Parts: sequence; C-alpha cells; structure tokens
Amino acid sequence: MLMNRKLRYGMIGGGQGAFIGAVHRAAIGLDGQAELVAGAFSSEPKRAKASAASLFIAPERAYGSYQEMAKKEAQLPADQRIDFVSIVTPNHQHFPPAKLFLESGFNVVLEKPATLNLAEAKALKKIVEKTGKVLVLTHNYTGNVMVKQARELVRSGYLGDIRKVIAEYPQGWLSTLAEKGDNKQAGWRTDPKRSGAAGCIGDIGTHAENLARYITGLEIDSLCADLTTFVKGRKLDDDGNILVRYKGGAKGILHASQISVGEENALNIRVYGTKASIEWHQEHPNELVVKYPDKPREIWRRGNGYVSAQPAKFTRIPAGHPEAYLEGFGNIYQEAVRAIRAEVAGKKLPKDLDFPTIDDGVYGMAFIETTVKSSKLGAKWLKFPKL
Amino acid sequence: MLMNRKLRYGMIGGGQGAFIGAVHRAAIGLDGQAELVAGAFSSEPKRAKASAASLFIAPERAYGSYQEMAKKEAQLPADQRIDFVSIVTPNHQHFPPAKLFLESGFNVVLEKPATLNLAEAKALKKIVEKTGKVLVLTHNYTGNVMVKQARELVRSGYLGDIRKVIAEYPQGWLSTLAEKGDNKQAGWRTDPKRSGAAGCIGDIGTHAENLARYITGLEIDSLCADLTTFVKGRKLDDDGNILVRYKGGAKGILHASQISVGEENALNIRVYGTKASIEWHQEHPNELVVKYPDKPREIWRRGNGYVSAQPAKFTRIPAGHPEAYLEGFGNIYQEAVRAIRAEVAGKKLPKDLDFPTIDDGVYGMAFIETTVKSSKLGAKWLKFPKL
Amino acid sequence: MLMNRKLRYGMIGGGQGAFIGAVHRAAIGLDGQAELVAGAFSSEPKRAKASAASLFIAPERAYGSYQEMAKKEAQLPADQRIDFVSIVTPNHQHFPPAKLFLESGFNVVLEKPATLNLAEAKALKKIVEKTGKVLVLTHNYTGNVMVKQARELVRSGYLGDIRKVIAEYPQGWLSTLAEKGDNKQAGWRTDPKRSGAAGCIGDIGTHAENLARYITGLEIDSLCADLTTFVKGRKLDDDGNILVRYKGGAKGILHASQISVGEENALNIRVYGTKASIEWHQEHPNELVVKYPDKPREIWRRGNGYVSAQPAKFTRIPAGHPEAYLEGFGNIYQEAVRAIRAEVAGKKLPKDLDFPTIDDGVYGMAFIETTVKSSKLGAKWLKFPKL
Amino acid sequence: MLMNRKLRYGMIGGGQGAFIGAVHRAAIGLDGQAELVAGAFSSEPKRAKASAASLFIAPERAYGSYQEMAKKEAQLPADQRIDFVSIVTPNHQHFPPAKLFLESGFNVVLEKPATLNLAEAKALKKIVEKTGKVLVLTHNYTGNVMVKQARELVRSGYLGDIRKVIAEYPQGWLSTLAEKGDNKQAGWRTDPKRSGAAGCIGDIGTHAENLARYITGLEIDSLCADLTTFVKGRKLDDDGNILVRYKGGAKGILHASQISVGEENALNIRVYGTKASIEWHQEHPNELVVKYPDKPREIWRRGNGYVSAQPAKFTRIPAGHPEAYLEGFGNIYQEAVRAIRAEVAGKKLPKDLDFPTIDDGVYGMAFIETTVKSSKLGAKWLKFPKL
Repeated sequence: MLMNRKLRYGMIGGGQGAFIGAVHRAAIGLDGQAELVAGAFSSEPKRAKASAASLFIAPERAYGSYQEMAKKEAQLPADQRIDFVSIVTPNHQHFPPAKLFLESGFNVVLEKPATLNLAEAKALKKIVEKTGKVLVLTHNYTGNVMVKQARELVRSGYLGDIRKVIAEYPQGWLSTLAEKGDNKQAGWRTDPKRSGAAGCIGDIGTHAENLARYITGLEIDSLCADLTTFVKGRKLDDDGNILVRYKGGAKGILHASQISVGEENALNIRVYGTKASIEWHQEHPNELVVKYPDKPREIWRRGNGYVSAQPAKFTRIPAGHPEAYLEGFGNIYQEAVRAIRAEVAGKKLPKDLDFPTIDDGVYGMAFIETTVKSSKLGAKWLKFPKL
Repeated sequence: MLMNRKLRYGMIGGGQGAFIGAVHRAAIGLDGQAELVAGAFSSEPKRAKASAASLFIAPERAYGSYQEMAKKEAQLPADQRIDFVSIVTPNHQHFPPAKLFLESGFNVVLEKPATLNLAEAKALKKIVEKTGKVLVLTHNYTGNVMVKQARELVRSGYLGDIRKVIAEYPQGWLSTLAEKGDNKQAGWRTDPKRSGAAGCIGDIGTHAENLARYITGLEIDSLCADLTTFVKGRKLDDDGNILVRYKGGAKGILHASQISVGEENALNIRVYGTKASIEWHQEHPNELVVKYPDKPREIWRRGNGYVSAQPAKFTRIPAGHPEAYLEGFGNIYQEAVRAIRAEVAGKKLPKDLDFPTIDDGVYGMAFIETTVKSSKLGAKWLKFPKL
Repeated sequence: MLMNRKLRYGMIGGGQGAFIGAVHRAAIGLDGQAELVAGAFSSEPKRAKASAASLFIAPERAYGSYQEMAKKEAQLPADQRIDFVSIVTPNHQHFPPAKLFLESGFNVVLEKPATLNLAEAKALKKIVEKTGKVLVLTHNYTGNVMVKQARELVRSGYLGDIRKVIAEYPQGWLSTLAEKGDNKQAGWRTDPKRSGAAGCIGDIGTHAENLARYITGLEIDSLCADLTTFVKGRKLDDDGNILVRYKGGAKGILHASQISVGEENALNIRVYGTKASIEWHQEHPNELVVKYPDKPREIWRRGNGYVSAQPAKFTRIPAGHPEAYLEGFGNIYQEAVRAIRAEVAGKKLPKDLDFPTIDDGVYGMAFIETTVKSSKLGAKWLKFPKL
Repeated sequence: MLMNRKLRYGMIGGGQGAFIGAVHRAAIGLDGQAELVAGAFSSEPKRAKASAASLFIAPERAYGSYQEMAKKEAQLPADQRIDFVSIVTPNHQHFPPAKLFLESGFNVVLEKPATLNLAEAKALKKIVEKTGKVLVLTHNYTGNVMVKQARELVRSGYLGDIRKVIAEYPQGWLSTLAEKGDNKQAGWRTDPKRSGAAGCIGDIGTHAENLARYITGLEIDSLCADLTTFVKGRKLDDDGNILVRYKGGAKGILHASQISVGEENALNIRVYGTKASIEWHQEHPNELVVKYPDKPREIWRRGNGYVSAQPAKFTRIPAGHPEAYLEGFGNIYQEAVRAIRAEVAGKKLPKDLDFPTIDDGVYGMAFIETTVKSSKLGAKWLKFPKL
C-alpha cells in the first residue's frame, strides 16, 4: 500500500438531518483507510458546528462554507491537509464545490447525479482532465460484489450476446406530497432548483441506467420515455417508464418510480443473453441468479470460491455472512482510496480501477436530459446524444 | 345443480403430440362435472383415431373432421349429444369450428387468442349474440384464486386509485429457431398463417393484457409497442415491450418475451394503487403479496379464512396444499359448466358468472392488432380502437 | 395400455363435509383413467344419498354401508363391477373395509396411516399377500415429481453418503381446541378411538417419516421422541420432536406440529450428503434445491429436460406451469391404475411400480407405536422394531 | 454523548490471516466512535508487526504479547491509554487476557464463546463483578435489528405464550477434514485444546442457543443432545441435534452442523406462540416473518415506521437499503461504546444497555458442557445446571 497512513478527508454537506453523508462516513469507516478531519457540513452555521462536534472534528476545521474549507485546507501543510473531499450536498451544490476543490488541488468523491445539468457535467469533465485529480462518482450499487460478478459474466461472454435488459427501480416513499411537510429529503429532491430537470428519474432512474450500463456495457441508441407526476402539486416527475434501444440491437425496459406504494428500494435488473441470463435484486444483494436454456438455474452467492477473481477482491466476510448496502458503498470508496493514494503519492493511477467516473456522470446527465425531453414531446423516440 | 348428470363434451384438436388439449381434459377432470364423449382430435386420421382410442372415446364418435362432428352430433338424440365442444386447435382453426358449432346449437369453450384476427373476433361476437349460446374463452390465468382475490382488492377500493400496472410474461423456450425442427408447438406459433399477425404478443402477451384488465378493470387509452424478432429466420415477433396509458391516467408497462433464456412461464403482475399495491407471480400462484405505505407487507395465501368470498368459492383444498395451473384452468371450466348447465336446461344464465367471454376475445385481438401496427410504425403511440 | 376402457372404482367415505375423499376424486379425475361408479360415502344414510347424487352415482350403487357395497359389487357381472375401491374414512375404519374388499376380490387404495395400530397393519399385510390384490397407500407427497427427483439423486449416488436428514411438518390449525366445535376433521383426528395412539404424529408425522424414507431409503435404527399435548383438553399429541439414528450412521431430526400458529402445511425436507445436499418444500413443490460444497446452488424445476427419466414420466404440463398437491396425489393414482389394470387383466404387475404399499403402512404404524412409547417413557431412546 | 472524543481501543489477536478481528474492526468503523491505537495481533512477532503496520498502528503500540500490552498501556497517560480492548483470539486465549485486562483497569469486548470451559466463565464473571469494568460478549446476531424486533414481539406479549422454538444453524465448510491442511480457522476450531470440549456446538451451537434465549427469554430446564463427529479423524463434534424442554413448558429443537454440505451460515429461528409466530433468517436479516392463526402472514422489514422504538434505534439506513452482518455486529459495539463511555467518564452505566454480558457467557458455557455430557451418556436427558 502506498503511504503508511490513513488518508484524511473532508466532507461538504452531510450534517445532522441529512441522509447520505452518514452513509459515506460509514462506508469509509468499514475499511479504516481514511479518517474524517474537516467539514463544511451545513449552510446553517449552528448545524454545521454541532455536526462537526458530534463527528469529533477539531473546531478549527469545522468550516462555515465549502469555499472557506477549500481555501484554508489548501493552506495547511501537506501532512495535515485533506487528501480528498466527499461532496454529499443536493444536486445543485455538486458542481460549484467539485470545481473549486479540484482546482484547489484536491481529489473529489461526488454524489450522483453528477451535476444539475448536462452542461455542468461536461464542464466538470474538462476540469477533471485539466487538473489530473481523481473524481469518483458514487453510483454505489455498482460496488456490490454480485453486480461485479454479473459484469464479469457479461464481459467473459458467459451470457452470449445480450438481447434484453430490464432495469427497474420502484420506491414508494413519495406516493403522497411529502415535500409539503418537513421531510428534508423529499423537499430538495422534488424541487427543480435543487434537483434539476428530473425528479424520480434523476434521483433513482440514473442508478438503474448506470447499473444496466455497468453490467452490460451497452450504450443507448435511442429511447422513448413516458414520465408522470402522479402526486398533485409536485413539480417534478415521480414515475417514469422508458423503452430503450441499445446500439447493436438489444432492447431494454427501464422504469423507476417513487409512488409505487409499499416498495422500499427495489432496484432490480435482469439481463438476457443468448446463452444464459442473470437476475440481481438490490434488496437481496448477496445473490445472483443465473439461468440457462437447458440446465438448472443457479444461485451464485457472494463469498464462495466460484466467484470470479475481480469481484472476489471486494468481499470482506465469508459466504452466508451477508454484506449489504454499506459494504457495496464501501467498495466504491475502497477503489477511490486506491486511486487517491496513488495520486497523493505522485504515482500513476492503477489501471484496473473500478469506480464510476465523471464519464458516468456525463452519461447520466445526458440520460436525464434525453428522457425529460422525450417525455415532454409526448414520449417520442429520441436518439441518445453523442458525448 | 341443474340436471343430475355429467355434461358431455367433445374436443376439436388436442390429439397426441398436442399440448393444450390434455390440459383442458385434466382441468375438466378435476371436478367430475363433464365427460369427454366425442372428438375430432387431429386432421391426420391415424392420429385422430389413436387419440380417440387412448381417451376411451367410442369409435363412432371419433370423427375425422370437426365438420363431420358438428353434423353427426347435432343428429344424435338430446340425451346423447354433446353439451359443448372444447376447441383447442391453433389460432387459424378457432373461428371456423367455433362458428360452426355455435350455429349448430352447441356451446363452445375456445382457446385464446380468440381468432386469427380482429375481424374474425368481431364476427364471432355477433354469432354468439345471435345464437345465444355460451362461449367461454380460456384465458386460464384469471381462474387462479389469488388473481380473483387481487381483482376483489381493486374492485373494493382497497388499493385506492390505480396508478401503475406492470405486467410481464417472459419465457425462454423460443430463444433459438426451434420451429426448424419438429417442435410442433414452435411450428405453428411462429407461423403467421396459423398464429396470426403476432407471435409472442399473440401467444402470451394477450395473457398479460387480459390478466391486467381482469384485475384492474382498466382500459387502454393508447400504447407504444416495440416488438422484436431476435431469432434469425423467424417470421413473427419473439419479444415485445409496450408502454401503456390507461383511460383515467394510470400508466402501464407490458412486456412479453419468448427469448428470455431460462425463464419458464414467468407471468407476473404488479398493481400500484394510492392506498396499497399487489403483486402476483404465476409460478407461485397460491400467494398474493399486498404492500402498504405504512404497515408490513402481507402474504395472502389461498385457502385461508381471510380470502374474500368470491375467490374462496374456487378453492378445492386447504391452505398450504398448493393448487396450481390446472386448478386455475379448472376454475374457468367450473364456471363454464355452470353456464352451460343453465343453457342446456333452458334457464337464464347466472348473473355472477366469472369467465372470459368473446368480449375479452375481441379486446385481445384489438390489442394484438394495435400492438403490431404501433411496432411497424416504429413504435409509435397509437390510440386503442373503439370496439 | 391394458384394456381399452376406464377403470371403475368405488369409494368408502368421502361424502359431503369430508376432506380427503374429494381430493382422491380430483386426483383420479386428472388423468381420466377411472370413473367413480359406486360408493358408501357416509355412515349417515341421508348424507350418503345426497353425496352419491351429487357425484352422479346411479342410485342402485349408492350403498348404505361398505359391507353392502362389497357384497353387491361382488355379485355384479365383471363388466360392471368396480375394479378397485378407495377407502378414505378415518383411521379406525381402514382395516375392516380394506380386509373385506381385498377378500372379496377387489383392489384397494387406502388412506394413510394404514390402520389403527401396528397389529392391524401386519394383519393387513398378510391379507394382501394372501389375496394377491393390489393395495396402494396414499402417502401422496411421494407422488410429487421433484420428490421423485430427490430420490433419484440419492439413489444414483449424486449426493454421496447421506449424513443428515431433517424432515419437518408444522401446521397450525389445531392450536386451539378446535375439536370442541363442529370441526369434523379436528374431531376424529384428536380422538384416540378413531385416530389411534397418536394425533399429530399419526396424522402428519407419518408423512414426514415416509417422505424421508422414500427419498433416502434409510431405515431407522433407534429414536427418541418428545411428544406434547399443548392444548388443554386434547386427548392426543399435537406436537412432536424426534431425534433419529439411522442404520449406517446417518442422523435425523423429524418434527411435526399442529399447534405451530400460522403454518399451513409446511412439509419440508433437507437431506445432506457428502457430495451434495437437497431441499424440498411441499408448499413450493415444483422446485428442488440442490447444494454443493464448491459450486453454486441449483434450483431444479419440474418439467425441464434435465429432470431424470423416472420423475419426468410423472409430469403433465411444461416447466413454469406449476403442478401441485393434486397432481402429486394423481401420480400415486396413475401408478395405482397401472398396477390395477394389470391385475384386472390377469397380468403380472409391472416391476417398476412407484407407489406406497402395505409395507410402508406397516413401517409407518411401527413408527407411530415406537414414537408414542418412547415419549411415554420420558423421551427415551428406543430401538426401532424388526418388522 | 459523554466525552467529545473517539474512544481508543486495542486488539488481542486478529492479525493477518485471522477472520473475526477484521470483522470487529469493520463493525467498530461503521460508527466512527472508536479508533484502533494498539494491538497484540499475533503470537508470531513478524505477523504481529506486519498486521500493526497495515492497520496504521504506531510501532511503539504494536505489542509482542497481550501481557506486554496490558502493562505498557496501563502506564500510558490517561489521555493516550486505550479505553477498551477487543479480544478476538481462539477460545483458549479468552480467559487469560480478559482477566489480565480487566484487572489492569480496562474494559473488555470478548469473542464468544466466553471461555474454554464453564469454570473459567464463572471465574471471569467474578472478576467482572470485582473490577466493575464493562465486559461485552460478541454474540453478534443479537445485534440485528429484526432480532431485536422479534424480542420486542415476545416481550410485549404479541405472540402470546411461547410453545415451541426451533433454532438451527447449519454450515457446510467442515464437511471434509479441512483441519488437515492450512485452514487456520478449521485448525483451532476442531482442536480441543484451543476450542474446548465442543466443536460445532461451541462454535455455532452457542449462537443458536443465545439467539433463542435472547428472543424468547426462555431458560432451559433439560436437554437431550446427540452430537456426532462425521468426518473421520476429527477430534470434536461437527454436528449436533438437541431436544430442549424449557422451564414453563415450551419445547425446543436446536440443531447445528458444520457438515451440512452447501449451507453457508444458515442461522434460522422460528418461535411459535399461542397468538402469533415469528421466523427470522440470518442470511436475509432485514426481514422478520410474522404469522397468525387467522390473518395474512406479514413481512416486517427493517427501517419502516412500524418497527418498535428500541430496535429502530439500531437502524442506520432507510428501509430497502439492506443492512447485514457487519451492521448487526456494529450494533453490539454501539452499545459497548455507550457503556464504556460511561465507565470511562466515571458515570453510572445506562440502564437500557442491550448487549450480551458475562452472564450470557456463563450460560453458554453451561450449555456446551451439558450438551457434551448428555451426548457422551448416549444422548441422555440432563437437567440444565443452576448457575
């Protein structure tokens, strides 16, 4: 391992009352490879302070704003300064801090979707390229071991040619006008100013898109999207059904919903090939169902000797001791740490890094914009843009 | 019960080597309400004879053609003549015998899809109305007890307003060019002359459509269908993905496939309402999953005291003693028998009959034609026709 | 097939209000190989008549007692007389009619457990041997295709040596004193006079025992049984936990219960071998889970090409079209019919018959008696008797 | 929270090649409440050093033995010294370091089973009482949220009176003589000197026992244990089947196995009450099945509003985002931290602490000894000892 020390990181957002910041911290905490030493946890000074204290951050590194944090951290000596920052704010606050920290010399881990819109994502890509810093986008579900196994099965030709992909992501938590109350999560996710052009499709549809692309490697040729806002008074879509035509001839269905009453976080994917097919359910992530034309279907389970080498690297505990959401998330960070250790040490990045990048971010934003546009045109088929 | 005797029935098709004829006979056999006494089991005389003999049919009632059967049976005395005929031939041989038997004074049970095309279905509807005979269409999955329970939950308002319907029917058995060999089932189902304008969509897509409509009562306003023929050399679609807009604002996804490797007969449906949602899987038919926004999801299981009265009537054995495909099929026949007993006795039909009729047949054929047309136009949105 | 006609059968018991008689009739009805032509359906004349009428039995063959039936049927000409009788009465009414019909020249299908006690079972065995008639015991669960597949896997050595067997059969329907009310089933099953020495263990524990023995072929060396009567006022056990030592060194756990609230009919079995293990759940009977030390677990599903030849013979419909309880039951009858056709035709019985016989009945009664005795001695280990 | 700093902890054992040490560190890492600052990771100096370095431990706190560690840490100033030690060595190395650290003034987190034998456990209990230090035993499965929910349902009377408990824990990883090779885990777990009087029963049978007792509160009155060593050359049991009679009249079955080929870590429990029953599967830990006599079975899922207050406290992420083994383990540490913070601050311990203590350790060791003794006497019923 490069450098015999823990990495130091800071966090933008993720203060008390937030959801995903605590997830990032727990995910990092699993492997003990990095410690949180600084933060601009909230735009409300009081909440920022209290959050920092509860996280054992030294008062002088509990910043009032990410701008202050970028500036002050950059001035610290190299052996104190953070190695990277995790940005866990709502979407409209992705691009500005990401840009600033990259340009201030820091590596960045960024929540998805990458930015507020496609233009920002493209701009961010240029900044990443220019600065040479690491940017990791936390499409966390691709961190799951059995998702990586699914990708291996596709890549190795085990499934044959891919014909059909069904990715679905139903949730039910926005089946009423939750944003009316004090549900902070509902508030920003249904607000175009903070969430962007899409609601459900931006929040979770992009996860389904990313998962399908990660596993299959297929690129969208064109799509037809029928988005709906079922809850009266809501400003963004809360449900979307999309037909997809992939380059090369495969067909796809991608649907996401936040009004599917009783569904929790049912991200599921099925990929059908000419030789075999797979099925993965996020709520039971340790299993990958593999189906064949002429032999019994199999349940591949994480932690066993038959799991391929690359996915096996991301297993922490033995078979039958289930890993889940945080462990998958932690795997994204494991790779982020590996890249950032190299970057900080001034080495070349490893070639086999396995995490979502700004390219995924650009693709995801293009997906959102094409989807929204298709739907506004009456669910018209649109070509996916060249990126 | 009307008439203290078993009904007598004949069969068109369903000889040795066929699939669905034996299913009909087993389904009828479950309840002992009717006995097979005549048949035109095959267009090949040898096979017809052998089939009849193996089914213990008296030689004089083993007919060489359905035309002969209609004629001869009509000439028999009332206490010997069949009460109804079950037509289990390929699609192109639905309309001619159905028409003939209805017009010859017989009740008819008819395999789905109703006819070869919409025009025939509409014509058949007129014949049914004119003759006053019973016509039962065997969309058998609606015979399942927990499907009936699902319908009760929608009808009673238990789910609130329906927002989204996902009906899917993947199979994998046609993932290669099976029709090239001597697979009789594959042969006719992929042949436009015998199957009609659609392959997969006609064979099983119509089941998914019928199931969704049976449960929800929703009517299609418009649809956008992307059908594909994945297997080279095949003449009809073997996969189809359809977006649906229902009258009243609900949205739907309906997809069917016969190239989904490793899938057997995975007809599944999810219905999302404002108050609760349901989920049913044909391969585990005794269970109905009911989900709520704020309480534990429930597994409703056939045979329990909490099952509603109407579905409960169709239960033969106690909870935990699973019923399955044939029992569901038998429930269609149970209702058919109830209707036919009344018809034969010259009584009014019961008002609470629960089986698919020629109206379902007309609807299904319109669904096929609209779907095929949409797809040919590049997966264009089309209004569902008025019927 | 021997004889180009349906077999004719009669039924003892199984009138209106009974449970298992209707099951037998439906199971037979599935295959159309036999028709019900006579019956002594109830000891109450009115109920017997009404039952016979509803089953379309000719009035002259609706008998007032099984004694009358045996006598009158024996006097009928060979081309009218029944070929076999199905005895579906409570346990105390197994031996007398079985003896009478066998000795009157009829084949017999008999509900389990075979008799009221071991002595009767042994006596019945002698009668079967002496008369040379067919006696089929309806331990119906061994009729399930995937149970037969499980047996094939054991027999062929696929599992290696068997080390451990866990058979369980929890139900919940007797968790209160249901026999106090008018629950006919609860009444006789908890009454020592009609049920025998055991309640739960006799009613369903024997099924678990039979299933384990059918699949594994293992014989019990000794057992230790802890039976309990949880419900106050009940006269027989309603729960039992049994440790088993098999000949050859395998170990087993067998437990059955009728007070396991919320369980329906959860007969499950797991068999662990040195090379592989299997798991089967009666409530999802189309699947057999096969587990290995070093490769993915498999779900073997009925109807597929990889199912072994012997079990495959008992499949009526394709994979994914689930079969269930009645179909498994029907498979017992399918074999019974095959044997009885031979017997009636005066031929030798086929050698590959696959149904439970009086030997299983004797074994099951010994199991009940040993279990009850062990429990009465304080759950003491007892050797299984030589039979 | 008491003290605005992370707790400091050391670790005994858990160096490279070990299993459970990394689990402890990950579990602690999830919540960021404690940091690892010292360790005696291995009795092999080289491995100890390398382990310490890879964990970023300062060289001067990478100790060569736990004795050295206890001595040196005790000499450190209060603001550097560890607050507690985690002991993750094989069983024979539980008591000596636990005793030493407690007596040296440190709090202790200790792997299960508590000690090598009952006498040690009792001695340790006295030391805990005398020193007043916190001792937490990591029966980690009781940390699972839905296990806590199960306990709540029992405690609140929701299940009524408990009648039957079935706890099972099959694994398959020792189905061959793995200890012959270099499988470190297999090595010590099958070695009486390091593991104690029992193999499988000590390693995992105690987990099943603890889980059953945690959920139900039932105490064992007597038991009958049939332990087996299936693998030739093995020195300890690798399988055990136990009948249990609980005080108050409930009955139980407890079985554990490490030769159940294909099983991974299938700790499952079913508890049957007079009003309702529950079922929990460790491999799908986010769900608790609740069954009733007269209404649909329910799937209670972690993270929902209907989860009781006490279990809900241990939830980190929303419903549908699965938590698993490490999170359950982390919950034990969460409570350990709460207790240790109080102890270090000189405050009274909170009254609502929820973690396994030395009392559980004593009980577990008595369970092991009684089980082994019963089995040696031919699976004789034995009274559970007074403790």
